[in-house]
Amino acid sequence: MIGQTDEFSLIARYFAPLSKGYAGALALTDDAAFVMPEPGKVLVVSTDTIVEGVHFLPGTPAGSVAMKLARVSLSDLAAKGAKPFAALLNAVLPRARDAAWIVAFSDGLKQDFDRFELTLIGGDTVSTPGPLCLSLTVLGWADVGRTPHRSGAKSGDDVWVSGAIGDGGAGLLAARGGSGSAYLLDRYRHPQPRLALGAAIAGLVTAAMDVSDGLIQDLGHICKASGLGAEIAAGSIPLSPDFKQTGLSAVEAATMGDDYELLFTAAPDRADVLLAAAARSGVDITRIGRMIDGAGVRCLDALGNDVTPVRTGWRHFD
Amino acid sequence: MIGQTDEFSLIARYFAPLSKGYAGALALTDDAAFVMPEPGKVLVVSTDTIVEGVHFLPGTPAGSVAMKLARVSLSDLAAKGAKPFAALLNAVLPRARDAAWIVAFSDGLKQDFDRFELTLIGGDTVSTPGPLCLSLTVLGWADVGRTPHRSGAKSGDDVWVSGAIGDGGAGLLAARGGSGSAYLLDRYRHPQPRLALGAAIAGLVTAAMDVSDGLIQDLGHICKASGLGAEIAAGSIPLSPDFKQTGLSAVEAATMGDDYELLFTAAPDRADVLLAAAARSGVDITRIGRMIDGAGVRCLDALGNDVTPVRTGWRHFD
Repeated sequence: MIGQTDEFSLIARYFAPLSKGYAGALALTDDAAFVMPEPGKVLVVSTDTIVEGVHFLPGTPAGSVAMKLARVSLSDLAAKGAKPFAALLNAVLPRARDAAWIVAFSDGLKQDFDRFELTLIGGDTVSTPGPLCLSLTVLGWADVGRTPHRSGAKSGDDVWVSGAIGDGGAGLLAARGGSGSAYLLDRYRHPQPRLALGAAIAGLVTAAMDVSDGLIQDLGHICKASGLGAEIAAGSIPLSPDFKQTGLSAVEAATMGDDYELLFTAAPDRADVLLAAAARSGVDITRIGRMIDGAGVRCLDALGNDVTPVRTGWRHFD
Repeated sequence: MIGQTDEFSLIARYFAPLSKGYAGALALTDDAAFVMPEPGKVLVVSTDTIVEGVHFLPGTPAGSVAMKLARVSLSDLAAKGAKPFAALLNAVLPRARDAAWIVAFSDGLKQDFDRFELTLIGGDTVSTPGPLCLSLTVLGWADVGRTPHRSGAKSGDDVWVSGAIGDGGAGLLAARGGSGSAYLLDRYRHPQPRLALGAAIAGLVTAAMDVSDGLIQDLGHICKASGLGAEIAAGSIPLSPDFKQTGLSAVEAATMGDDYELLFTAAPDRADVLLAAAARSGVDITRIGRMIDGAGVRCLDALGNDVTPVRTGWRHFD
């Protein structure tokens, strides 16, 4: 039980090893971290919070919790074409949490920090009478002028998405039911931030974001920020073989969220160079629709019928 | 009740107004924020988390919660000589929280962001079945080479502290008891980050940090990081008139925490220039002891007796 130790020992034992290799982290022994700017680069910062019982099910392996936390944050940097280098962790830990949980959590975080070349440069570790709650703030560098926002889409642009949609949501259903495809469960627990793809397409796209709340809802954010509408073809939404076996539809896939794929818009004449960039990054991309004058997202079936669902994605306070 | 709205409306209504004036915040409508480096400056980053019922009492006015959150984070930047410019807010909100609470919280935050010239550039807003939990990550710029760490103290250095010690802790006792000095309660709820003092002395000191967990415990961190010990005179610890009326002792003051004063070390020949810098910053500073060879902090009374308490400060998982 971590109630038998103190936060300084916790930090020194479990988190300081993740701070190696970055002088400005000061081995997590100081009150602040120091980041020297890189010439010609803009700092890109994103932060995500996950709460046990809200963002992940109680009983999820601690290593998987760590990886999900790291990857949902890194996915935001991927969408902005940034290369991540550092992170800060705010860990709000129940006093009764087993020390074995912390060991497995920090092991999982270490694996991902090694995998994605991240250094832990700071954070805060506190106790709570409530559920476990974790925030990760990630820092990356991007080339000035090559950081796609949500607001840059133009009417007539193609709408693209990476990978396959719906796997994460179907994986969550599998986790809740205690059974289902191991592939989908893995996609839910261990999403792949599309960092190489994001960096490769950053200078080619007009808008980009990652799909976390649901494809249709997230495309709605690009529409709103860009002052446009969008039409997507339900039949063109990329689905994995395992997803298809669940019996869920493409429209359902587009509302479930937890995809952490990249959603982006680009002029139609960029299609070939985008496909080539995606191939070099080892990730499929699929054209699913286009940006139009107007507002909101319409999802059409093969006959042109509007099959847009009423509930387009996850909201916290519904 | 915020359960009737969604996080996008919450962010747009209550938090986006705090993002004005910083282009890289993108009005909190994007997944990430963008920070352009300042030539010759190092980025200083610090983050703090507070949990209702742990770091502040349930029933604390929401505006005071916001100000405490902002100031405990800014205090860390003050200790490093940095000028804050931006912050990210991770808000973990109980679904049943009254909307009036959010209004008062965001009002308090807005007041402090105006006061300390901060812009909200990002964050995450999520729901929880547990207690309210808030993290603020603050970013500041400091001059390269003028960022004191904990580890730079030298044997023979003077130990200094700003302001008065114990007011915050006594204010907490007053808040718990439901009565007591309004001055102490205000010092507990609304600590003053010593930003001007921190910037003025950054190039003069050998080590600096803020006092948050207790003067003796925090000086112990400087000792450990610097490989030294320290001796302080209980009688020299600066106490406010209101604190003295509580009947608490100077040694108790030095263990209670919540001070958010600056604790720093400097060569004895810097005393005059430090006192002048403090006078220009409008904050008193007091020499309370010196760094010595050895380890740990010893607190001595006027007769030279060791009056170091066993419990030197706050720990989360005791």
